[in-house]
Amino acid sequence: MADRTTRRRAVATVCLSGTLEDKLTAAAGAGFDGIEVFEPDLVASPWSPAELAARCADLGLSVDLYQPFRDLDSTDPATVRRNQRRARVKFDVMADLGVDTVLVCSAVAPDAVRDDDELTAQLAATADLAADRGLRIAYEALAWGTHVSTWDHSWRVVQAADHPALGLCLDSFHVLSRGGDPAGFAAVPGEKLFFLQLADAPQLAMDVLQWSRHHRLFPGQGAFDLPAFLGAVLAAGYGGPLSLEVFNDVFRQSDPARTAVDAMRSLLALEAALPVDPLVLPAAPELTGHAFTELAVDGVSGPVVAEVLDRLGFAHTGQHRSKPVQLWEQGAARVLLNAGVRTADGEASVVALAVESADPTASAARAEALLAPVLPRSRGNAEAELSAVAAPDGTQVFFTRTGPDGWPADFLPTHATAPGAGLTRTDHVGLTQPFDAYDEAGLFYDSVLGLDPGSGTEVAAPFGLVRSRGVTTPDRAVRLALSVSLLRRGGGWTPGVPDPQHVAFATDDVVATARALRAAGAPLLAVPANYHDDLDARLELDPALLADLREHGLLYDVDPDGAFLHLYTEVLGGRVFFEVVQRLAGYDGYGAVNTPVRMAAHRRARARG
Amino acid sequence: MADRTTRRRAVATVCLSGTLEDKLTAAAGAGFDGIEVFEPDLVASPWSPAELAARCADLGLSVDLYQPFRDLDSTDPATVRRNQRRARVKFDVMADLGVDTVLVCSAVAPDAVRDDDELTAQLAATADLAADRGLRIAYEALAWGTHVSTWDHSWRVVQAADHPALGLCLDSFHVLSRGGDPAGFAAVPGEKLFFLQLADAPQLAMDVLQWSRHHRLFPGQGAFDLPAFLGAVLAAGYGGPLSLEVFNDVFRQSDPARTAVDAMRSLLALEAALPVDPLVLPAAPELTGHAFTELAVDGVSGPVVAEVLDRLGFAHTGQHRSKPVQLWEQGAARVLLNAGVRTADGEASVVALAVESADPTASAARAEALLAPVLPRSRGNAEAELSAVAAPDGTQVFFTRTGPDGWPADFLPTHATAPGAGLTRTDHVGLTQPFDAYDEAGLFYDSVLGLDPGSGTEVAAPFGLVRSRGVTTPDRAVRLALSVSLLRRGGGWTPGVPDPQHVAFATDDVVATARALRAAGAPLLAVPANYHDDLDARLELDPALLADLREHGLLYDVDPDGAFLHLYTEVLGGRVFFEVVQRLAGYDGYGAVNTPVRMAAHRRARARG
Repeated sequence: MADRTTRRRAVATVCLSGTLEDKLTAAAGAGFDGIEVFEPDLVASPWSPAELAARCADLGLSVDLYQPFRDLDSTDPATVRRNQRRARVKFDVMADLGVDTVLVCSAVAPDAVRDDDELTAQLAATADLAADRGLRIAYEALAWGTHVSTWDHSWRVVQAADHPALGLCLDSFHVLSRGGDPAGFAAVPGEKLFFLQLADAPQLAMDVLQWSRHHRLFPGQGAFDLPAFLGAVLAAGYGGPLSLEVFNDVFRQSDPARTAVDAMRSLLALEAALPVDPLVLPAAPELTGHAFTELAVDGVSGPVVAEVLDRLGFAHTGQHRSKPVQLWEQGAARVLLNAGVRTADGEASVVALAVESADPTASAARAEALLAPVLPRSRGNAEAELSAVAAPDGTQVFFTRTGPDGWPADFLPTHATAPGAGLTRTDHVGLTQPFDAYDEAGLFYDSVLGLDPGSGTEVAAPFGLVRSRGVTTPDRAVRLALSVSLLRRGGGWTPGVPDPQHVAFATDDVVATARALRAAGAPLLAVPANYHDDLDARLELDPALLADLREHGLLYDVDPDGAFLHLYTEVLGGRVFFEVVQRLAGYDGYGAVNTPVRMAAHRRARARG
Repeated sequence: MADRTTRRRAVATVCLSGTLEDKLTAAAGAGFDGIEVFEPDLVASPWSPAELAARCADLGLSVDLYQPFRDLDSTDPATVRRNQRRARVKFDVMADLGVDTVLVCSAVAPDAVRDDDELTAQLAATADLAADRGLRIAYEALAWGTHVSTWDHSWRVVQAADHPALGLCLDSFHVLSRGGDPAGFAAVPGEKLFFLQLADAPQLAMDVLQWSRHHRLFPGQGAFDLPAFLGAVLAAGYGGPLSLEVFNDVFRQSDPARTAVDAMRSLLALEAALPVDPLVLPAAPELTGHAFTELAVDGVSGPVVAEVLDRLGFAHTGQHRSKPVQLWEQGAARVLLNAGVRTADGEASVVALAVESADPTASAARAEALLAPVLPRSRGNAEAELSAVAAPDGTQVFFTRTGPDGWPADFLPTHATAPGAGLTRTDHVGLTQPFDAYDEAGLFYDSVLGLDPGSGTEVAAPFGLVRSRGVTTPDRAVRLALSVSLLRRGGGWTPGVPDPQHVAFATDDVVATARALRAAGAPLLAVPANYHDDLDARLELDPALLADLREHGLLYDVDPDGAFLHLYTEVLGGRVFFEVVQRLAGYDGYGAVNTPVRMAAHRRARARG
């Protein structure tokens, strides 16, 4: 666990899926200090408020906020009277819960008060009721409030009320989605900052209410500058908990235990990125390349994959001393075939990736500090120690230094050699993510491994939309390509290859490599002539290049910095394929534009197979 | 099959999931006359354009449009030259495909031409190239075009060009999403209307491009007035095919054979709704009530459900003459327990619903005309004939008239009676839809049964967002409540009740009924005290009513026309529960606001069970 500062960390129950019982267990399990109780969660719970308080105490959780109280103010006197009554009933609930702060958000009803003086008076009157009970009101501007929709407007009202039981709640989504400037927080006395809610979000061109209700993310998963925001709040003197309030359609239906860990990881990483008084985490050592990629195979798929590696110019250079694991090498490209693990569906798949770390032990320490599940050392005593953690999709991530005294020492050399086909190293590993794990994975690789998450792309693939992003070291020595179906597939019509994974190898001359692979009988994926016709129509390629692309079945892409030539094998042993790539100049993508062509071709190959 | 007019029907390949091969098979199977070839589908296909043309001919499909050609015009002369070259290459493809019309959409690039004269000149120059090949260009205003974004602007340009090979493509989404007025089509000569693309959409507050790319629907599934739109296009003299172009995230990943049938059904229903020269379909006879709901049960769940029906005051009044089917009755509420069918998961579930039809044979004829799968008559010769079709979720829908010579004659009376508990009839049947079938189901019940689809609601339920809508006869004698998870669940964290279905019975006095059920030991779902506390805080209910709600564990909702009191049983035998409802005054909903409370309580009951 990281060195914890004295700041307390909380999570709103609305962030997590399940019943209140499920949510509390998850929040406590992830190490949160407190929770915000989202009212509908309490309403649906069989626990009385006092019983909930007791359960939280048992779990070591404080109740930091009761929320939300909606549409408090009104221009209709009868409604005002009813709302004051409602507030008194909720204050009783809060007393039983043992929580002293309630979130009152700016009204969204048509009868919301426009006049600031009247609004101030109504808030102050309710604050009087709260103060009588020893409670206080944190007033928050919803970005879509009827009249109060900016934080500075909410502050003017709170300032005017000048009531000890009335303060501000700052919510990063509401402030930043409206382009609000955190620099203004400095003008607010710290003791008037009653509560802080943190959420990130992608930049989306949509109605702000829908954006907020469906697409919020944990800090670090979106586009907002949360370190600057939080820094400004803390600099203003805020001393309450750092609390997450994230409405997200995926998190609402994902395993809450996982989501809570993802949430806590986001807070730790955010605190570590603070401009002042950051949380101290073990640094992320430099990662200098892919060491190996490990595929699980069985008696059927093993020989298939091995034969293809042979045809791709790899040599079977080593045999593990104690396990049914083969090492295949070509240049610095290395693949392990492991017949000693079983995958869920028995199909060949990527089960592990190993990255070269400047300090494997420190890499593992950082991973552990960021709540990555540390895997039991399955390697024997006489074998090289490999620190491993589990990525969100279950892939094992090993930190290692490849060298004579490192993991290769576990392998007895076969002394086999191969002519090679020009493959020099692993360019990237492509991992199709489980539906619920995509955003979690981006944050995991960013915070735990220090990989930069690239901007995502979305392509209309034959079997549905696919979202993808690269995560890379700054120098691109390590690259992972993460992808996910926009809607979870499965169930009926899934004729394509489900969730394929792949390993892409680099070459300096993809034409020569393609020629060699074809001569060796590698099962290369056929690319339609229509594809090359369209390429030429779009890009007016040099005729010699176009002829090469056509002859060798290569795919092509350009970006502002360079170009990309690549080819694929067919899917092998269930759900793995290989790719060969050549990057020209500074091309930094993964040829995502060609994904639909690849998927359609894989579908045809599968239909034939 | 319906009486077909001479109008031809087409579907864009982009509407359907899969590879081009999958899409053609689906389109032909659903009876389409032609297709629009979406360029990326061709690009990913191994078929040459000529081979595709041959395949279409084999399937009886014409190729009606090649689309889209993007960003034709440019302020950059070099780009203009490249685009003319690109057009020539695509015209070659079109010639091989045997299609004479290409869709050119208004440019979205920053270098798009702003000056209408220059734009007209560039379009006319390309139209010259097209005319040389015997081809023509249908120009369409994209709603988000850089400069041309309305249909009337596109018409001014086409009119100015006055070129025989340049006409308009009208797309209902682009016109109606911008609030365009179809009345203006009357000013366009019919021969300048080269093509028509039809799509519906829900009203959404979002970026129009995202709205178009992800949320289009087939006609009748959204909020647009397509009959008026199509009527205006036809009145202007359009004589080409009625072609669907729908970009929808769900359809992109659903079984294309089903989607194509859904698409064709939408066109048939649209044509039947035309103000002039409508397609003649068999009328939908009046439906006057629920006849029965049939549950599949097995040796374990059957006795459980039977015992609960007994405690709910039902009597086992009949035993089927030849099948292991029991009839249970109370008032006009009837449930069949069928131990002779197997469900996929072996759990109790709703397998059929029967509605009273003024003319069952005509109901079945209409269903067949609208491509509803007609089910084989599984009833024996001596038994009453029941016409049945399959709904999108697989539920069998029977059309019947309950009477002494009808289906009840299949049952030998047991002469059992029961005191009853005040249940008078079936209020509604609740069917959780498979993820891919929600919009299809709305159109199915609307067009096939003549049920009005109500506006949908969305609730944040404990295990994810749930969308629901009622579909009802105008007089509410038949009500179905359809619901679906916003994101497909399954695969990991699914502790709730998966896709439960339910039957809701009406009572005129829910308090008396609740008292009777409790006395009989019915397994009623416990409602948290917090729920009633919150109800009182929100609604300030009459104390006597509130006391009744608390005492009997009733849930409550209000709408502008009335109120709703209801209670649930626990989930029985896997995935079925019962509901008892009392509607006060004109309440027209289903208590969706209480769904999260119900789901959390079912989750707890399941965790205990």
